[in-house]
Amino acid sequence: MKYKAKVFVTLRPSVLDPAGTAVQSALTQMSYNVESVRIGKYVEMVLDATDESEASDRLHQACDQLLANPVIENYRFELVEAL
Amino acid sequence: MKYKAKVFVTLRPSVLDPAGTAVQSALTQMSYNVESVRIGKYVEMVLDATDESEASDRLHQACDQLLANPVIENYRFELVEAL
Repeated sequence: MKYKAKVFVTLRPSVLDPAGTAVQSALTQMSYNVESVRIGKYVEMVLDATDESEASDRLHQACDQLLANPVIENYRFELVEAL
Repeated sequence: MKYKAKVFVTLRPSVLDPAGTAVQSALTQMSYNVESVRIGKYVEMVLDATDESEASDRLHQACDQLLANPVIENYRFELVEAL
């Protein structure tokens, strides 16, 4: 069966986010009232699996091995059956 | 009032995604059964606004002006009151 996954990879709160800081100061200069900006990766994937739990396990492995750097990043994902 | 925004910036479907293609082939080599991978930006922001509609308007402007490149990217966002 096909599953559609939405993966959100974000820097751990304790890790400095230079890109986010740069965007925040640009927005502030453009007179936006922004308190904080954190930038991460958003990955949309379609994967094959026998059932949802296998899809979830495979996704955890893919995140641990490739999509997220466990030292500085957290990840979470949403998994739905692809129509 | 403070609002927390989650912004998803993705490449338009018609635009080639070299990063996504690279991740897909890496995952395939690692024997993952992946049909497609698209990579985008995920931005978490906290902004000040008088009400939700002003926050939404400001966020649209920020996306149009800075966070997304309208030529090759689409964006959508989720807006909730920050506690």
